[in-house]
Parts: sequence; C-alpha cells; structure tokens
Amino acid sequence: MKYEDIKLNDIYEIEKTITSNMVETFAEITGDKNPVHLDEEFAKNSIFKARIAHGILVVGQISAVLGMEFPGPGTIYLKQDTKFLKPVYIGEKIKISVEVKEKYDEKSRILLSTKVFNEKGKLAVDGEALVLFKGE
Amino acid sequence: MKYEDIKLNDIYEIEKTITSNMVETFAEITGDKNPVHLDEEFAKNSIFKARIAHGILVVGQISAVLGMEFPGPGTIYLKQDTKFLKPVYIGEKIKISVEVKEKYDEKSRILLSTKVFNEKGKLAVDGEALVLFKGE
Repeated sequence: MKYEDIKLNDIYEIEKTITSNMVETFAEITGDKNPVHLDEEFAKNSIFKARIAHGILVVGQISAVLGMEFPGPGTIYLKQDTKFLKPVYIGEKIKISVEVKEKYDEKSRILLSTKVFNEKGKLAVDGEALVLFKGE
Repeated sequence: MKYEDIKLNDIYEIEKTITSNMVETFAEITGDKNPVHLDEEFAKNSIFKARIAHGILVVGQISAVLGMEFPGPGTIYLKQDTKFLKPVYIGEKIKISVEVKEKYDEKSRILLSTKVFNEKGKLAVDGEALVLFKGE
C-alpha cells in the first residue's frame, strides 16, 4: 500500500480470538504471571469472574494489524495510547477496528483510532496510534 | 503492598534483556511477523540496521512490572500511553523505570510515569500508566 492510497475515514476491521495459549505464552515472555490471567480458580473469585487476557496482549493484536495489514509493511510505530475499558476473556472473539483520523502529509504520518470490541460488541480497548508510513 | 505505602515520587527500577526468543514468540502470538523483527538480513538493510523488538513487547515488560512488582498484585490497568522514541534491539539490556506521579485517593488510582531506557541510557519508550490499586 502507498501513503497516497490511504484516505481519511478509511476503516480496516478484523476479528481474532484470544486463546489460552496466547495468554500463557505472553505471561512467559513478559513475566506477568498474575493469576487472574493463568489460574481459573483464582480468576473465578476475582472481580472478573473468569480468566482474562493481559491488556497489552490485546494491544499487541492492534500492533500486528498496523504492521502487517493496515497500513501494513513499512509502518513505523511512533505512539500508542490505550484505555482499558472492559476485560477481554480467554476464548473471546474480538473485533479490531482501525480508522484513519488524520494525515500529516509533510511528515508522512498517520493518526489512527484503534478500537477493540468484545464478543458482545462493547468497546473493550479504546485508543489512538500515530505511525510513520511512507508505503512499501 | 498497600495503597497507603505508595508515596508520590517513589521510583521502582529493574533491568531486563529482550531476547530473540521473546521477539519470535511475540511474533507468533500476535501475528506481527514484520521482517524487521525476525529477518537479520532484511533488518540489516532497514533504517534500524539490525533486528528490533516489537514496541508493544517492550510495553509488555512495563505491564509485567506494574502487575507483579510495583505496585504489584491487585493492580488493574486503566490506561497506558506510550511514545516510541528509539528502537530496542534484540539482546539489548533495558532499564524499566516506574515513578509515582499522582495519587487519587478517593478512587484508589495511581498515575505512574513509565520509562524504558536502552543499553546506552537513552530514553527508548516514554509513557504514562493509570492504574486502580487497592492493595493486596
């Protein structure tokens, strides 16, 4: 994709399921072994009532969309802001939605809204990314 | 740790090395297989000159500190803002620094600055986290 092909308000959406394996592996490579992510029994008695994914693992799914799909190869991450509004549960199918909010032509930068919806369609993670994108 | 034990300007710092295995595993669980992270030859010819870690993998190390060490167990992530200022290279020893900037007692919330320094001591990732923390 070329910088010129990206238009204001363009939206890219994709669905993905957060698996138990993804959460356990993320716990290994970061060291975040909070039992709310790993221990079914502990999680059941927490305010979440079941095991949840690490927030940053969910943000990693956004990052993968930016780097691989939209805008895709050539994207350099400058900024990512995120608000964690609702938990994402293990096995939950999420929808990642990326929308072009601003283009700064002189610097080849793009401001994108980055939203993650849970299986019930509620906004789970809200945020914004700023990327440098000169195209492939 | 209890909410009351946390004081304004308290700083927690830890060093950690980002390994090739961590980067390859993160690529698997997110799908972000950008060759700048995985392909030595490709990375050598990129503006980075060598393989770099995924930005969000580095943020995952911050998240692990918040959830496991400082403030530690009981932390609920509300917000994480990050600016990616410099790349973090594979095999690089980073320093993660978390500092208490504000406490909102009535809501048991803490605002923390979250910084990651590269091996040369330069700020690589700057940011801020807002957490809910009622203590253990």
